[in-house]
Amino acid sequence: MNHAVFAGTFDPVTNGHLDLMRRALRIVDRLTVAVAVRPEKGVLFSQADRVAMIQESMHGETRLTVEPFSGLLVEYARQRKASMIIRGLRFVSDFEYEFQMALMNRRLDDGIETLFLMPSEAHTFLNSTLVKEIAMAGGPVESFVPAHVEARLRKAVEARR
Amino acid sequence: MNHAVFAGTFDPVTNGHLDLMRRALRIVDRLTVAVAVRPEKGVLFSQADRVAMIQESMHGETRLTVEPFSGLLVEYARQRKASMIIRGLRFVSDFEYEFQMALMNRRLDDGIETLFLMPSEAHTFLNSTLVKEIAMAGGPVESFVPAHVEARLRKAVEARR
Amino acid sequence: MNHAVFAGTFDPVTNGHLDLMRRALRIVDRLTVAVAVRPEKGVLFSQADRVAMIQESMHGETRLTVEPFSGLLVEYARQRKASMIIRGLRFVSDFEYEFQMALMNRRLDDGIETLFLMPSEAHTFLNSTLVKEIAMAGGPVESFVPAHVEARLRKAVEARR
Amino acid sequence: MNHAVFAGTFDPVTNGHLDLMRRALRIVDRLTVAVAVRPEKGVLFSQADRVAMIQESMHGETRLTVEPFSGLLVEYARQRKASMIIRGLRFVSDFEYEFQMALMNRRLDDGIETLFLMPSEAHTFLNSTLVKEIAMAGGPVESFVPAHVEARLRKAVEARR
Amino acid sequence: MNHAVFAGTFDPVTNGHLDLMRRALRIVDRLTVAVAVRPEKGVLFSQADRVAMIQESMHGETRLTVEPFSGLLVEYARQRKASMIIRGLRFVSDFEYEFQMALMNRRLDDGIETLFLMPSEAHTFLNSTLVKEIAMAGGPVESFVPAHVEARLRKAVEARR
Amino acid sequence: MNHAVFAGTFDPVTNGHLDLMRRALRIVDRLTVAVAVRPEKGVLFSQADRVAMIQESMHGETRLTVEPFSGLLVEYARQRKASMIIRGLRFVSDFEYEFQMALMNRRLDDGIETLFLMPSEAHTFLNSTLVKEIAMAGGPVESFVPAHVEARLRKAVEARR
Repeated sequence: MNHAVFAGTFDPVTNGHLDLMRRALRIVDRLTVAVAVRPEKGVLFSQADRVAMIQESMHGETRLTVEPFSGLLVEYARQRKASMIIRGLRFVSDFEYEFQMALMNRRLDDGIETLFLMPSEAHTFLNSTLVKEIAMAGGPVESFVPAHVEARLRKAVEARR
Repeated sequence: MNHAVFAGTFDPVTNGHLDLMRRALRIVDRLTVAVAVRPEKGVLFSQADRVAMIQESMHGETRLTVEPFSGLLVEYARQRKASMIIRGLRFVSDFEYEFQMALMNRRLDDGIETLFLMPSEAHTFLNSTLVKEIAMAGGPVESFVPAHVEARLRKAVEARR
Repeated sequence: MNHAVFAGTFDPVTNGHLDLMRRALRIVDRLTVAVAVRPEKGVLFSQADRVAMIQESMHGETRLTVEPFSGLLVEYARQRKASMIIRGLRFVSDFEYEFQMALMNRRLDDGIETLFLMPSEAHTFLNSTLVKEIAMAGGPVESFVPAHVEARLRKAVEARR
Repeated sequence: MNHAVFAGTFDPVTNGHLDLMRRALRIVDRLTVAVAVRPEKGVLFSQADRVAMIQESMHGETRLTVEPFSGLLVEYARQRKASMIIRGLRFVSDFEYEFQMALMNRRLDDGIETLFLMPSEAHTFLNSTLVKEIAMAGGPVESFVPAHVEARLRKAVEARR
Repeated sequence: MNHAVFAGTFDPVTNGHLDLMRRALRIVDRLTVAVAVRPEKGVLFSQADRVAMIQESMHGETRLTVEPFSGLLVEYARQRKASMIIRGLRFVSDFEYEFQMALMNRRLDDGIETLFLMPSEAHTFLNSTLVKEIAMAGGPVESFVPAHVEARLRKAVEARR
Repeated sequence: MNHAVFAGTFDPVTNGHLDLMRRALRIVDRLTVAVAVRPEKGVLFSQADRVAMIQESMHGETRLTVEPFSGLLVEYARQRKASMIIRGLRFVSDFEYEFQMALMNRRLDDGIETLFLMPSEAHTFLNSTLVKEIAMAGGPVESFVPAHVEARLRKAVEARR
């Protein structure tokens, strides 16, 4: 059975991330979404909240598991018996960083292969940082994240004021 | 009437920024330079000082206005009844970030078009961060910024010591 | 009055080119589309046909003129009393070539400014060469070019067989 | 069952291509290598020879099929009932071209996903054109291609003289 | 006599840096490695430790000197009577930053030339930040740094816990 | 003694190439400029003329030799007992191609190091192809090439008509 890991900060998950998860599920039998621990001051949402937002967004998708994650990604993949790491590619700058990480990961464990997928072009420009900036500035974010994420984002932004 | 916004941090304004403003004024009837608010600890000059340095540099240019700015750029442009955002492009890395911002802004308001201009090649390497680093290290900056900016830069650097 | 030139081979014009022309007309008062002469063996359509396909696509747009063109673009712009050259940007590789051309053109005539616009992300991947390859392979092109261009493309492809 | 297509010119197949095929076979159940037809004057080896060199290199690999191919890749994938296209990525310039092709292919058939893999860094610099140039100049190619390909390459180069 | 400066943070020095130093010594008569001062909170090792780790790694290499450094690099090179700055290039993103720095340095002193070298492809993916992240996560770093650096890295990571 | 090779087509030599040769001569003791043979139909000037134009431009520079060249560059450098290959870098696209060539050359002979230099930013946009296009279109090229090259270029262009 074909098992892949898709890791990230997801602060918060966007429609771009969700599009990639759905594309990955067409390719692999099982997908584990690994939500990276981050120092609390660096993120808007707690790790538990970031996990919950993805679970709610992908509800009913039985081949997908969402888990908190810390440490080395290849080590984590090995423990989960996953043989693939899924990454999204949108920009040249993504590409170089991803390339560097993938080569490093391959050096750490050559048995785990990195697969790159391309999100829908409608999400090319999307990233969590931009979405947070727009929300902070009071702009509309409903076309970038699911409705339940938008609600949490509004609340988190208000709490920060 | 053709009205564009040119936004940035301008900490401080360089000859590269001024070159772009002059090029923009050959294309548009009216140019508003929007100086972004930033957390005080992240910048060397206050927002008021950053506005003043541009005003002094472009003195006598009646079709140009300099204003403090915060919030969403497309929202700001809409309020000013500007239909264009002007951006400078020098490097591939600029290009990708700018592309992402421009696509996001277009999604937020398709009525506002982003125009990219190219600064003179004599300013390709210039940016405010490098200019500040050189000034901090005691190096010469007179060919990178106007004389009055250089004087302020020297004073600000000394105050930091 | 604000007059710009938009030059290309347009073999054939695509929805991406037409999107850029419409965006340019929101910025300038008058747009001249300059259709470059090419050695007949290098193109699928004659220069006259490439001009006609753009005229038909932009029919009724009185501020736009389509003309055959050969020689130096800055020289042509100067003769037409245009002060701007419009270029589309989609990719890093576009960017570098365009940057090089724009610097060269500025060196040849500093009075003519190059403006870069970004096509809709729905057309990011589009170019005339890909469209021709798909048509040659018998694939569907109706979402990439106007209907009348598609008809001509089918005919041209059949004549080549 | 998981079936992917890996297409190219393979004129001739290099160790970099073979590394990618082996990596792909760790991810998919079945791999079809599609060898593109090319005008005879543009390639050193005939389509039949290019097919044969891959078959010989991957001999014994029962989950891999090598086939001549012409036309639209997505159409071909659909006929073979493959749901994935595999592509190798090494450079930024690869990336942009591949991105453009993948977006175009997705537009032509959204049911076929493009997966990008990274070859071993030992093969980053390898491509068929460089290998042919070295062989033409009488240089050593034995570390870039399998021995049987090297022998054919020597013979083809001599025949050209 | 041919004298060059190779500057960096080296927090800690990696096999990639050492490979570049050895390549530089094949080209120049004398090489000064300049270890930049950094705010203590931004680095894992003190400036003295970073100097010592390079000295130990390049022990016996009489044409190489390692020194602490602060201020402007071109000014420093001038004081040392070096006429060249050596930089490593691996990625497009490196390239653009390096290009910008080199143009700025040339503007500050046209008598000092910047030379770019390419590290071995086995080290393409290596950088100090990644090495520290792996060490922090308890992963293996012995193939990325010399043994004595690995020992110090383990100790420094434990002290942080 | 420090000996480097600088190879190219030089069809014709431009001020950008000459700037790089002068910069190289500040770094190395001896420079051999290797002018590549090309199929006559692909170039405007014969190999002998391309050699002569460089010799005339660098007249009096005793540490520089200009020679016709064919075959493998590393082989040629080895025969000339040169230990370095000099290359110019201006653009990201240059960079990737150069990187690939330099890795290949290192694989062919690890004793020959490739050094990258940066031309003056005044020549960033310059290349022989653009210069020829401008000359063909009757545009001014006197600021891009030496006067004697300009004269030859005019004559060659007229002969083609």
